[in-house]
Amino acid sequence: MGKESEKTIAERCAERVLGKDRVMENLGIELQSVQDGAAVLSMTVGAEMLNSQGNCHGGMIFTLADAAFAFACISCNQAGIGAYAAMDFIRPAAEGDILTARSSVRHRGSTVSLVEVLVENQDGRPIAQLHGRSHNFGRPFLDESDGQAVT
Amino acid sequence: MGKESEKTIAERCAERVLGKDRVMENLGIELQSVQDGAAVLSMTVGAEMLNSQGNCHGGMIFTLADAAFAFACISCNQAGIGAYAAMDFIRPAAEGDILTARSSVRHRGSTVSLVEVLVENQDGRPIAQLHGRSHNFGRPFLDESDGQAVT
Amino acid sequence: MGKESEKTIAERCAERVLGKDRVMENLGIELQSVQDGAAVLSMTVGAEMLNSQGNCHGGMIFTLADAAFAFACISCNQAGIGAYAAMDFIRPAAEGDILTARSSVRHRGSTVSLVEVLVENQDGRPIAQLHGRSHNFGRPFLDESDGQAVT
Amino acid sequence: MGKESEKTIAERCAERVLGKDRVMENLGIELQSVQDGAAVLSMTVGAEMLNSQGNCHGGMIFTLADAAFAFACISCNQAGIGAYAAMDFIRPAAEGDILTARSSVRHRGSTVSLVEVLVENQDGRPIAQLHGRSHNFGRPFLDESDGQAVT
Repeated sequence: MGKESEKTIAERCAERVLGKDRVMENLGIELQSVQDGAAVLSMTVGAEMLNSQGNCHGGMIFTLADAAFAFACISCNQAGIGAYAAMDFIRPAAEGDILTARSSVRHRGSTVSLVEVLVENQDGRPIAQLHGRSHNFGRPFLDESDGQAVT
Repeated sequence: MGKESEKTIAERCAERVLGKDRVMENLGIELQSVQDGAAVLSMTVGAEMLNSQGNCHGGMIFTLADAAFAFACISCNQAGIGAYAAMDFIRPAAEGDILTARSSVRHRGSTVSLVEVLVENQDGRPIAQLHGRSHNFGRPFLDESDGQAVT
Repeated sequence: MGKESEKTIAERCAERVLGKDRVMENLGIELQSVQDGAAVLSMTVGAEMLNSQGNCHGGMIFTLADAAFAFACISCNQAGIGAYAAMDFIRPAAEGDILTARSSVRHRGSTVSLVEVLVENQDGRPIAQLHGRSHNFGRPFLDESDGQAVT
Repeated sequence: MGKESEKTIAERCAERVLGKDRVMENLGIELQSVQDGAAVLSMTVGAEMLNSQGNCHGGMIFTLADAAFAFACISCNQAGIGAYAAMDFIRPAAEGDILTARSSVRHRGSTVSLVEVLVENQDGRPIAQLHGRSHNFGRPFLDESDGQAVT
């Protein structure tokens, strides 16, 4: 991201969270980009993410998508909390696959945001979709007076 | 579990999966019990499972519940695959909390099973609910001729 | 229902709504019973409820289940509003089928209730399941001072 | 729609269903447009669609959205059946409101399609969202040899 003065509000919101999430760190989930109401995150499927069938565990795909859901919400500078998230599993992901989750806010209300996340592999093939509902607290995520996150 | 000859089919199905799931191992998810159409799993929230707010990451709660969903399906000796899973988040879980996920098959069809999972903490307070839909392949999970899992 | 003095709170709550819902009236949806946290409603599939395939329209099955969801919420004497409802369709219903929807509150919180509804036909075969989430306003549905509904 | 020879496959698919759905007829649900993977339907909220609060019954909004879900699926010339549909209610609709449901296929697979439907009122304000999952039978909806629907 660019100089502080050039950063968008979405980028500044994302920075308040980045580096503080142990699960993102452990799974190697990276934020590729963020803008107002949308985010792109990626994760490479490691051997430690496999289920008994040798495929990527659904919980790991969900975790990636849930993180993308959260960044989309945060990018709007609204404080809130995830209330609901539903995942459709489309096809398995294998060890070594690079998964990309693209989230976008489909409804942005004062009390509720609805978010869609599409997860694809490195060939652009769909792996899963997630639909999330967050409850907003009616106040900004960043305290504009000092740029601190209000949590 | 008891001697081989005394084990239920549900227990024999579960054994085919136990110890082969890297994610369960990494997160310390333990199978407490399994019976026909139901399972109980537990997980202790470790520091590495926390999100940027210092609470248990939703993806980790989902992973526990998803595992309970899978064991409930497997316990019926039906081969299948998770198609859909929706989680309602009720309250946060904290580091050190011991989460218990109890799954039960609410509809058992030849092609579709519907499963409910309730996740509680050590005080019996509800943390989350999951509703899952699996698509069944119309054949048993165990090959009865030799007791091997058919995958 | 019995004499006013003998009625349960659940019954008194339900009575505030009964007879005021035009859709229930038009579809012939009947409340069979209600108790704290649960309700049973029924509907006969009429010719006017059929889709282009000659089966009961999914929207009509949903409407029955949604009404059962609402009565389960109301029966707890909590004012609130339906936020989310998800339906799994299990098998078709035909003209003349008598559908019964049984709802039960699976989580009862101060701000959120989670409800499950099972819809069966006259042979006890499952037709659909609904999972609903209501947001509660933190006040009773009935005004206890005069028994009036607070809406 | 135009002359038979000029009609798109999506339009020809839709015509096989139009006029045969009693619920669409009773509720005055109209197909405004259909193209490959998308449809627009509308409905005016009548007095007979109101719930006990005097708002449009959630089941009626669902029915409109479910119809839009179905037309999006049909427009792809894939035979299939709705397996799951989840509705987020955003704000109430009032008597006289003209609701428009816009559906689009977000994932089109050989066995599964995932569809999003947005419902708005005459002021363009969002009323509800629906996410649907259909199971496809792996054969076309239209029999290309004679243009008849295969059901």
